[in-house]
Amino acid sequence: MTRLGFIGIGLMGRPMVTRLLAAGFPVTVWNRSPDKCAPLASLGAAVAGSIGELVAASDVVMSCVSDTAVVEQIVFGSGGVAASGSPGKLLVDFSSIAPAATRDFAARLAQQCGMGWVDAPVSGGVGGAEAGTLVVMAGGDEASIERIRPLLAPLAQRVTRMGQVGAGQVSKVCNQLIVAANSLLIAEAVAIASRSGVDASLLAPALAGGFADSKPFQILSPRMAAHCHEPVQWKVATLLKDLDNARAVAAEAGLNVPLAELAAEWMRGFADLGNAQRDLSCVIELYQPR
Amino acid sequence: MTRLGFIGIGLMGRPMVTRLLAAGFPVTVWNRSPDKCAPLASLGAAVAGSIGELVAASDVVMSCVSDTAVVEQIVFGSGGVAASGSPGKLLVDFSSIAPAATRDFAARLAQQCGMGWVDAPVSGGVGGAEAGTLVVMAGGDEASIERIRPLLAPLAQRVTRMGQVGAGQVSKVCNQLIVAANSLLIAEAVAIASRSGVDASLLAPALAGGFADSKPFQILSPRMAAHCHEPVQWKVATLLKDLDNARAVAAEAGLNVPLAELAAEWMRGFADLGNAQRDLSCVIELYQPR
Repeated sequence: MTRLGFIGIGLMGRPMVTRLLAAGFPVTVWNRSPDKCAPLASLGAAVAGSIGELVAASDVVMSCVSDTAVVEQIVFGSGGVAASGSPGKLLVDFSSIAPAATRDFAARLAQQCGMGWVDAPVSGGVGGAEAGTLVVMAGGDEASIERIRPLLAPLAQRVTRMGQVGAGQVSKVCNQLIVAANSLLIAEAVAIASRSGVDASLLAPALAGGFADSKPFQILSPRMAAHCHEPVQWKVATLLKDLDNARAVAAEAGLNVPLAELAAEWMRGFADLGNAQRDLSCVIELYQPR
Repeated sequence: MTRLGFIGIGLMGRPMVTRLLAAGFPVTVWNRSPDKCAPLASLGAAVAGSIGELVAASDVVMSCVSDTAVVEQIVFGSGGVAASGSPGKLLVDFSSIAPAATRDFAARLAQQCGMGWVDAPVSGGVGGAEAGTLVVMAGGDEASIERIRPLLAPLAQRVTRMGQVGAGQVSKVCNQLIVAANSLLIAEAVAIASRSGVDASLLAPALAGGFADSKPFQILSPRMAAHCHEPVQWKVATLLKDLDNARAVAAEAGLNVPLAELAAEWMRGFADLGNAQRDLSCVIELYQPR
């Protein structure tokens, strides 16, 4: 059976490893704060003392960390994956990071130690990780993605190969562009309704299943209508980062994306007013009568 | 049994009347081009020679016509509803028209003949009308909307009272704002994907059920990826009109809606290049590399 390593035992990593262990895979784990590994050790995971030890014990190394800088650190930092990897091993990165950095990292890792790379950002959140119903947008060569399909079966309802390395990250960026900018469209619609004699809390049930409907519409529009923004589900700062990623990828491709640009401008102005850590539904506050 | 009148036997009106007849309601119909009434006469509808004759034969008069000007004509034009209506009768307007005009028409009709008004724009298209699964966003007093619920049962899966007269039209405008502007977000995402090494035809299946997903995403993104814009499903001109309606309602409420404004500007520029009658998916052509 394929020996798995997993770097990054956070909100997503913990349920993912739990499901891999339940499926019978041998899993070695490592985390910057080692105490996060203890609950998984009690479920049967081996806890590595270093990334090098983890790579040595694994055929496929998975990672799920917070951003591009952390991926660079675990792969190319002192004692990182690149220092101990070897040809035939494969890195599967579930993190959502910049596509251009992903392509660069994959090329450098191959050059330094011959190890392969699949970018595999996910959609579905912690609930999807716990239920094994994540959606994976994968980038890499066909053989590598076929190799990891059985390993992802306990985690995901669907794994789609979007193209070569980086194509998974590009797809995630496209997903997030729509989510982030659509949240402002939803706010514009809720603001219009509220100020024009409509009970805006009824928009979600009234329009359910129609062409304006989406999961964010069902979640955000009632919160916007009620000015109820707790608990935080999506942070404004996260969606702003997503819009900036989309703008960067568009610029690399020589494309103008005016709605994403304007959405980023408004989201940044709102975040800079002290709202960066608040829930996305707060953007309704941008829409006040003149 | 409530005697129904139906003005406007078009793509929507014909299946709606067909279902009302099948449900056992007596229905009198009138259409500007009378030949459209013949198929319904063979199903049992009475064909009125004039709007006045229709109103005299009906307790509730329904209308489903193309725009604000046509509603004004059938209600306040020579021999229109206002000339023959009387207290206790009710006009139910399924058309999608301007909210401010709706409020004005309702007030004038009440003043001129004492007849009530419910605005009841629908979502779901011809397919929804044929299947009786339309969604109705209704505006009017509670008693009037309770009165028409049994009459709408053969037509709609859901009738939601959104507020007083005009609130149904406002809700439809909000729905269309999201549909129209989101189509540009989808185009930006498809353009980024296509130019960044992703097979954009895979976005719809890969992201299905996720937070970026919507019915328009499933319909538009594959057409955009394949540059396949026939047959026309939604006209660019229609969505541009919807965005202009949303801008007008926002302006009446003293609201800035910058994303809707920018979406309208881009949609208008595109329509003015000879694309007004083309399918909405053509907006992908706005996104060409610099």
